[in-house]
Amino acid sequence: MAEYGELPLRGLVADILRSYEAEPDIIKLDDGVRIDPDAIRRLIDGLRNLVFAGFYEKRQPSAVEYYIGELLEKLSRLLQEQVARALRQAGRHAAGEVAEAARQKAMAFLARIPWLRSVVATDVEAALDGDPAAASKDEIILSYPGLYAVTVSRLAHELYLLEVPLIPRMMTEHAHGITGIDIHPGASLGHHFFIDHGTGVVIGETTEIGDFVKIYQGVTLGALSTRGGRLLAGVKRHPTIRDHVTIYSGASIFGGSTVIGEGVVIGSNAFITKSVPEKTRVSVRNPELQFKSDDKLKSVELEQDEFWSYEI
Amino acid sequence: MAEYGELPLRGLVADILRSYEAEPDIIKLDDGVRIDPDAIRRLIDGLRNLVFAGFYEKRQPSAVEYYIGELLEKLSRLLQEQVARALRQAGRHAAGEVAEAARQKAMAFLARIPWLRSVVATDVEAALDGDPAAASKDEIILSYPGLYAVTVSRLAHELYLLEVPLIPRMMTEHAHGITGIDIHPGASLGHHFFIDHGTGVVIGETTEIGDFVKIYQGVTLGALSTRGGRLLAGVKRHPTIRDHVTIYSGASIFGGSTVIGEGVVIGSNAFITKSVPEKTRVSVRNPELQFKSDDKLKSVELEQDEFWSYEI
Amino acid sequence: MAEYGELPLRGLVADILRSYEAEPDIIKLDDGVRIDPDAIRRLIDGLRNLVFAGFYEKRQPSAVEYYIGELLEKLSRLLQEQVARALRQAGRHAAGEVAEAARQKAMAFLARIPWLRSVVATDVEAALDGDPAAASKDEIILSYPGLYAVTVSRLAHELYLLEVPLIPRMMTEHAHGITGIDIHPGASLGHHFFIDHGTGVVIGETTEIGDFVKIYQGVTLGALSTRGGRLLAGVKRHPTIRDHVTIYSGASIFGGSTVIGEGVVIGSNAFITKSVPEKTRVSVRNPELQFKSDDKLKSVELEQDEFWSYEI
Repeated sequence: MAEYGELPLRGLVADILRSYEAEPDIIKLDDGVRIDPDAIRRLIDGLRNLVFAGFYEKRQPSAVEYYIGELLEKLSRLLQEQVARALRQAGRHAAGEVAEAARQKAMAFLARIPWLRSVVATDVEAALDGDPAAASKDEIILSYPGLYAVTVSRLAHELYLLEVPLIPRMMTEHAHGITGIDIHPGASLGHHFFIDHGTGVVIGETTEIGDFVKIYQGVTLGALSTRGGRLLAGVKRHPTIRDHVTIYSGASIFGGSTVIGEGVVIGSNAFITKSVPEKTRVSVRNPELQFKSDDKLKSVELEQDEFWSYEI
Repeated sequence: MAEYGELPLRGLVADILRSYEAEPDIIKLDDGVRIDPDAIRRLIDGLRNLVFAGFYEKRQPSAVEYYIGELLEKLSRLLQEQVARALRQAGRHAAGEVAEAARQKAMAFLARIPWLRSVVATDVEAALDGDPAAASKDEIILSYPGLYAVTVSRLAHELYLLEVPLIPRMMTEHAHGITGIDIHPGASLGHHFFIDHGTGVVIGETTEIGDFVKIYQGVTLGALSTRGGRLLAGVKRHPTIRDHVTIYSGASIFGGSTVIGEGVVIGSNAFITKSVPEKTRVSVRNPELQFKSDDKLKSVELEQDEFWSYEI
Repeated sequence: MAEYGELPLRGLVADILRSYEAEPDIIKLDDGVRIDPDAIRRLIDGLRNLVFAGFYEKRQPSAVEYYIGELLEKLSRLLQEQVARALRQAGRHAAGEVAEAARQKAMAFLARIPWLRSVVATDVEAALDGDPAAASKDEIILSYPGLYAVTVSRLAHELYLLEVPLIPRMMTEHAHGITGIDIHPGASLGHHFFIDHGTGVVIGETTEIGDFVKIYQGVTLGALSTRGGRLLAGVKRHPTIRDHVTIYSGASIFGGSTVIGEGVVIGSNAFITKSVPEKTRVSVRNPELQFKSDDKLKSVELEQDEFWSYEI
């Protein structure tokens, strides 16, 4: 082995190699080519350039048809390559079938883009309508984390439905890292979906969200379960949110059979584990606040009644 | 059109182009040059190098005067260029006036940097004083997300006051992505401002924050509103925080007429929609905890009285 | 001074220089070589390649022994260099002793990697067991933010124990930026540690966490203190969590003498400032929800009893 300066690295190399044999599950040194995390980032960026053509590139493309043609070709190659690796890494399909399966899934996915764009356009509308601080659609497309996360989730969801392993989750976790918004690619999202601010939002794998839904930062749509662990994989564990629902900051809604009815407004910090009938406003009877000044304790209870709606 | 391997992309290119015609609002393919998101990132990095000279560069500059001169020249060119694009993209100013307006705003902004640095120095002081875990000012400047977010917000706020469109929000959302701290560039922040931990903090557009204010993760300074939607743009919707206020983790304060008086301490998870008089400590009478062991339910109520201050 | 186009930058350069003299604490222009933030990022990436060999590199290495040898040599050089700078920047050691101290700490740190890998392997196990949405260990290693943050924290903790200044905190704050999970490098973490979702988690400097602990997004393990400020540095201020504890989303646990006993389950949004005996389940008696529809206010109280466990 080569010398490593004056440091006793030789022994350490041997220790590390022994450690690799001791913990084979957390290394990936087999001969098969495995999925490339950086490629997933390039995939997301390329897809966003396809959806929001011209917004994120350094230079605006001049010949649109050639630009789209080139971009689609790059994306389809990248997709086929990474989807094939994902299929191999997850042990799906016989070796001779992987390439064709990858090609079919990649093409089926790309064919969804026109429809997906029409839905993303409704998300931008919803953001403009739902946020007094939104100055323009350009501002939303250039900077809103909610739009970024939801767009990536919609794309990942299509790959999830096509039963592509690994890639959907890598995409949504990449968006999670950038936005603080954690949407599992299994979640189905209706149109005109707006997440405002978004940091801390968690939307679980089997969540169903309807149309014209608006949620704020810190909202959890989670699962109630007995301790079944991985036996629960595949079972609906997360709530169903109907159309025109608004869920304010910090609220938690749990349970696979929990249905939030149409037009419901869930107040900030509410904790919901049962279904809520339509056109109902739910708020928390605020914990009593205690005021203390000059060493005298004073209890004050806030009337919650009139504060039915708030936006940030 | 060129061939794309053996894949049927030609039809898809046509579908995508039709989709662009169907959803013109979410593409930016017109001839005008529009704002470049990567340039905003370079602007932030350059400004941080100007404010905290020497901390973030690979090599410390040896001839300070030339370093600053070069950096200022690059920044002023970048600023003028992007501000001009922002003005065009937002449709402000007649075409012949954009360049001059951009130049004036860029210079007015840069002229604020010396003063802004003196305020940022107070933020570093506040972090050192307010966090027992802070080992040194160097540690704060090199790694504290709160300082990063507040510094970027102060810079963005100056551009916001100069009525530069798009760029202020792109800057703060960039910082939001990195730190989890969401401060609208319209918010005005006093000196000695310290955000500790910060993930989940949301500070709305019309918030006013005084001097020597300290806030923790998950705090929302938000808006109460009737469903006025975009009619509310410009109206004060977010609270006013006076000097020497501390707001602990998870607290929410809502409302444009809500004033948190001088010296007030707001306890963790408090939900405030009314003004609080000065020198008052507000805490939540904790929801009753239920303890269950050995199938016996036991209710225990915590005394909240003595837990008046906590830091993380 | 050189000309800067047609803009009056000369006066501004002078103002900036005067501002540097006025605020010397927030610049770093002395002759000594100071720590390079980008090097810390490369250190993290290199260490993760060492721990999870083959997962994150573009190409899987073919000759493992040479790959590890080269990687270790690069890392040991990088570490020695940056640790030496950190020691100098923090004013530790006489000038002639810094290089040797840095070498010793770097080697001691690298020698811990085999053991650390065995612990990280248990974290991956814990994630697979604890999350119904986890499809495979590969998915966890490729995309779970909790694993990223905990791995970086374990590495940073070793450097913290070796009394390396600056670098540990820079590492954990880098991970905080990517994952929204804020773990101070001083915290000691047991094995089989799983943070699910994670956005908003804060774990303070003197926290002690046992084995088989699972925590969810928004959990704070924080400090109760009187206003001692920096006098508290070094004192145990954060809680102790025993083995097999589960802490659900949004819960806060405060205090250096607060001990959460073995097997305890802390429910969502609980606020704990006193110790909890072992094998106890703690839940919040939910704030009463108010339901309003058709202008009729209706109060409904949820039974909390049966909702003892939930996962997201």
